[in-house]
Amino acid sequence: MDLDLSNYNVRTDLALEARDLAAPGGGQIPGLWSEDVQDGGVYVNRMQIQTPQASQQIGKMIGHYVTLDVPGLRKGDADLQDRVATAFAQEFEGFLRRVGVNPNSNVLIVGLGNWNVTPDALGPMVVENVEVTRQYFELMPGQVDPGYRPVSAVAPGVMGTTGIESSDIVAGIVQKSRPDVVIAIDALAARSLERVNTTIQIADTGIHPGSGIGNKRRGLTRETLGVPVIAIGVPTVVYASTIVNDSMDLVFQHMKQHTNNFQPLFGVFGGMQEQQRLQLVKEVLQPLGHDLLVTPKEIDDFMEDIANIIASGLNAALHEAVDSSNVAAYTH
Amino acid sequence: MDLDLSNYNVRTDLALEARDLAAPGGGQIPGLWSEDVQDGGVYVNRMQIQTPQASQQIGKMIGHYVTLDVPGLRKGDADLQDRVATAFAQEFEGFLRRVGVNPNSNVLIVGLGNWNVTPDALGPMVVENVEVTRQYFELMPGQVDPGYRPVSAVAPGVMGTTGIESSDIVAGIVQKSRPDVVIAIDALAARSLERVNTTIQIADTGIHPGSGIGNKRRGLTRETLGVPVIAIGVPTVVYASTIVNDSMDLVFQHMKQHTNNFQPLFGVFGGMQEQQRLQLVKEVLQPLGHDLLVTPKEIDDFMEDIANIIASGLNAALHEAVDSSNVAAYTH
Amino acid sequence: MDLDLSNYNVRTDLALEARDLAAPGGGQIPGLWSEDVQDGGVYVNRMQIQTPQASQQIGKMIGHYVTLDVPGLRKGDADLQDRVATAFAQEFEGFLRRVGVNPNSNVLIVGLGNWNVTPDALGPMVVENVEVTRQYFELMPGQVDPGYRPVSAVAPGVMGTTGIESSDIVAGIVQKSRPDVVIAIDALAARSLERVNTTIQIADTGIHPGSGIGNKRRGLTRETLGVPVIAIGVPTVVYASTIVNDSMDLVFQHMKQHTNNFQPLFGVFGGMQEQQRLQLVKEVLQPLGHDLLVTPKEIDDFMEDIANIIASGLNAALHEAVDSSNVAAYTH
Amino acid sequence: MDLDLSNYNVRTDLALEARDLAAPGGGQIPGLWSEDVQDGGVYVNRMQIQTPQASQQIGKMIGHYVTLDVPGLRKGDADLQDRVATAFAQEFEGFLRRVGVNPNSNVLIVGLGNWNVTPDALGPMVVENVEVTRQYFELMPGQVDPGYRPVSAVAPGVMGTTGIESSDIVAGIVQKSRPDVVIAIDALAARSLERVNTTIQIADTGIHPGSGIGNKRRGLTRETLGVPVIAIGVPTVVYASTIVNDSMDLVFQHMKQHTNNFQPLFGVFGGMQEQQRLQLVKEVLQPLGHDLLVTPKEIDDFMEDIANIIASGLNAALHEAVDSSNVAAYTH
Repeated sequence: MDLDLSNYNVRTDLALEARDLAAPGGGQIPGLWSEDVQDGGVYVNRMQIQTPQASQQIGKMIGHYVTLDVPGLRKGDADLQDRVATAFAQEFEGFLRRVGVNPNSNVLIVGLGNWNVTPDALGPMVVENVEVTRQYFELMPGQVDPGYRPVSAVAPGVMGTTGIESSDIVAGIVQKSRPDVVIAIDALAARSLERVNTTIQIADTGIHPGSGIGNKRRGLTRETLGVPVIAIGVPTVVYASTIVNDSMDLVFQHMKQHTNNFQPLFGVFGGMQEQQRLQLVKEVLQPLGHDLLVTPKEIDDFMEDIANIIASGLNAALHEAVDSSNVAAYTH
Repeated sequence: MDLDLSNYNVRTDLALEARDLAAPGGGQIPGLWSEDVQDGGVYVNRMQIQTPQASQQIGKMIGHYVTLDVPGLRKGDADLQDRVATAFAQEFEGFLRRVGVNPNSNVLIVGLGNWNVTPDALGPMVVENVEVTRQYFELMPGQVDPGYRPVSAVAPGVMGTTGIESSDIVAGIVQKSRPDVVIAIDALAARSLERVNTTIQIADTGIHPGSGIGNKRRGLTRETLGVPVIAIGVPTVVYASTIVNDSMDLVFQHMKQHTNNFQPLFGVFGGMQEQQRLQLVKEVLQPLGHDLLVTPKEIDDFMEDIANIIASGLNAALHEAVDSSNVAAYTH
Repeated sequence: MDLDLSNYNVRTDLALEARDLAAPGGGQIPGLWSEDVQDGGVYVNRMQIQTPQASQQIGKMIGHYVTLDVPGLRKGDADLQDRVATAFAQEFEGFLRRVGVNPNSNVLIVGLGNWNVTPDALGPMVVENVEVTRQYFELMPGQVDPGYRPVSAVAPGVMGTTGIESSDIVAGIVQKSRPDVVIAIDALAARSLERVNTTIQIADTGIHPGSGIGNKRRGLTRETLGVPVIAIGVPTVVYASTIVNDSMDLVFQHMKQHTNNFQPLFGVFGGMQEQQRLQLVKEVLQPLGHDLLVTPKEIDDFMEDIANIIASGLNAALHEAVDSSNVAAYTH
Repeated sequence: MDLDLSNYNVRTDLALEARDLAAPGGGQIPGLWSEDVQDGGVYVNRMQIQTPQASQQIGKMIGHYVTLDVPGLRKGDADLQDRVATAFAQEFEGFLRRVGVNPNSNVLIVGLGNWNVTPDALGPMVVENVEVTRQYFELMPGQVDPGYRPVSAVAPGVMGTTGIESSDIVAGIVQKSRPDVVIAIDALAARSLERVNTTIQIADTGIHPGSGIGNKRRGLTRETLGVPVIAIGVPTVVYASTIVNDSMDLVFQHMKQHTNNFQPLFGVFGGMQEQQRLQLVKEVLQPLGHDLLVTPKEIDDFMEDIANIIASGLNAALHEAVDSSNVAAYTH
């Protein structure tokens, strides 16, 4: 029995989860700025990874991150969805200001992922519902109502169905359409089932190889595209192994509260570090093909709700003419 | 800490899983007849629960069961899919003979479940692809080619979208259209993730309240419909809690093979009966809302494949004129 | 050349078009009551065919008819769509009162037509978007909020895909679920292309054999179902032959305005009665297979818009708790 | 009344229809080579416009054209569909040879049009069903089975939903993915309703501004993309005005056969040149908004059938390893 876990990386696309893993129990990390606000069931974390040390410790890139966490979002509550869309629009507006995106800049929205795989369809679903305006600026320059900026939107597909890296497709489109900034939407993998379709992450770090659920081999970043890339992601799947591990942790915590003598109950296993235990679980499940990515049964509805929230939030945040204090009316 | 597990029932819709739980390690159960055959990656179990005692021990009704288990089915191998469709057609023909369904009998296929929930859409997807012929017998009696029988097919929807029990809708349609036998297709919950979209169960016991993933409140049985009801089911979801429990079991088995001294490793927890441990896991996960039904990320493709297999298998098994030695050509 | 047109019936499912054909130029028909109102681009006609004579002359059944005609509806104007939904809700409420439907009566909405044929999918699309409540009255009697009534909704499919007459399916469901009234939604054929997806007809005459675009062989009426049947229909297709004939008429009218000497311009053909000419066009086109039912290129969007209007209108009209002065918010 | 028809262009995207308009009754056109073959209900015309004079006379570009015409194709006959796919594959292989496309050349398939508009969805539907292989050549060069070539496929969307000219998107993708040849699939407008979804045109002239039903403003040609562009088109819509005009023509022809004295029957109108009459019809219909593009009611099924034919034909024609004598098995 040999468990060398030294270089083991827990797989999460969420900076907030990565921070919590790096500093369990809310410990301080030098070089990390973070603040939390909460309003009516919508929890917002704004975070900045400021130093290479913090970046290495957390395992995420230097940059700005905003995470909206709405535990009640999967309940199908239309009022809450409207409030989340509004909160998302306001956070996104603030984010654009913070990272220096000009209010009139030309925006290309890129919806990554695969239409035909429901939990990977976030990007295409958002693209389907955002309001594009760039064609009016091209065809009738000077005649567009004030309060709008040029917005275009594409869903480049995935390599398995196009035969071409999605990053190449996007790079080609960027070269021809010359946006000032790219907003890339992607479905993510999270560590815990309760984050699925309840969390939205905004980051100015672009999309990196291996992130998201579609196993990209190349990223979408300022380096590859020549313009800033803002990523919006929502976890829609988790690994079976992380469900198992997190659940074991919950069981152990539960039983610790009911006994004074924990060791005999769980033995060495109960005393393992979380990452050691996860590694063990993966070692067992993977060879058997049991370490699938899974998603909740109700994923179709969850995807539709969150894609509408992001699309209506983007419409409000990108166009001044769309009132961002009540964004719900602008999508269907 | 109080775990009364005496009446606890493990949740599986599969008779084969229930048998294995009732007699772990392949022990004999009086009143149960069972045989296994295997051909090219397709494992077939034919089982008959013959006595009330066996029924009670296993927790499934007296009746005939056939289970096709194809571990490789999720790999998208078109040749294997064709062979499974052929095997399913042949098993289903044999099953109809065994339970006494006349080759010319008028068949109503009922696709239970919800179109808009991918893992619950098995029934509607099969109904969409079966060949219906009853209208020709009604409109042009005496002119239908030999080798066909009257087949009709409906997808009654679910109570949440129709406002009516699906069993009431089916009962009304049965009264008006007078089939000799009902074949009901439904998505099921299984205990283990690897059964999802790899297993097909045929049973002559009908559909019972609480079975399937749509939480039916009333069943479809000979008692409620007045005609025999043959059920075809495919597991498409599992409870997060059973993934956790099964995975723990795998971890424990794995570690037992690597140590002589198991008890200190896992303590009391490792020594629990499986059902006690599952109960504990559920007790912990449910109040936190973590005991979701989950499904693999690739569920869209898996559903399409298995629905095509069942539809083409039914077309071949129900109509002599459709060659059941190669059924693949008959669906798209 | 032999044109006996004496018994020729022009094919339209709209009572208003049939009236205009029976009394061209707005002539009086004894036994027909009719009034027209107009508000902001929404033209409403309320009509009652009161006598067998009027019924025979018009070729439509004795009963109440309301027709909403909105020429601008295909322009995708969201504000207009909201106003039409509101107008439809108010007209439908008034219609229910006029024909004596009790405000608390139990309603079954039946969406006729075929999901997979876009211009025939009106019924299923409306059913998908109406709010069903009957299950709450069944499962929690006495606990439903005031202002709601029991509403259920089914889409029975078409005979070609189920093998069963849709009227039989509906009759079976009515027997089991016992509604007080049935509201049947169906796509219609109109005479003129500009009515397609711009007109909504409400009638208390039920659905009759041969009406709608799906060629029903049996109707849905009080006689067949035992409860009153209110029909809501929208023309979504026209026959190529009526396009041709109507266009010829426009051409003739146009040219008459530009010449004093019409006869030499069009000869005998120009002087034919409209129905003679239509018969001639049909005689020529049908043997060549040219008399297709056609629909506008943009039918997908048009169907979505009108189905939303009807669904949100029904939600407002059927439930007092839904404010019928602004119904747009209740659908997506 | 003033009809200046001198510069009037009849709108058809089919070279064969344009030729028939330029030389009614099968007259010779210098500089045009043409041959017709027929096999089992599949009519094939191979045509070459060789001189600028012929090009101007016909109104189509110099180049090679192949037209498959299958009048029975809309009947849903699976055997005929298989034969058409095979014939298309063979014609397309021959076409590639004739226009000098190397058997190993790297191919990019571009599916023009709009997913959400059924009659405009031909391109995206074909792209969805072709087999892409370029990724294997990129990721595992030297390991791809013989008999395959690199094929990639994209559906760039339409300007109304992306905000970017589809020609710009394609040009960007071509620059990055470096295909040797582009095959562009597009839905077309035809003159006559019976061509809708029964005709396939192949041409080596690329896609030109204003062709197809999506009103492109820029083309996809060797000039704009830097590589040869082969266009595959299927008429899916017709203008109401051409239906009217063609039907009038049929009526006139029909009546001429039944009378010796035509002039009094139709007057001046009957004696007009076809294009004069069409112009008149358009002049009357357009201001009234009656000159819609229309499509048959059954367009959903028709699109699925023809998209499958083209996709399976392309798979067979592009990959030697796919047997082009029976291509039906390769799509679903």
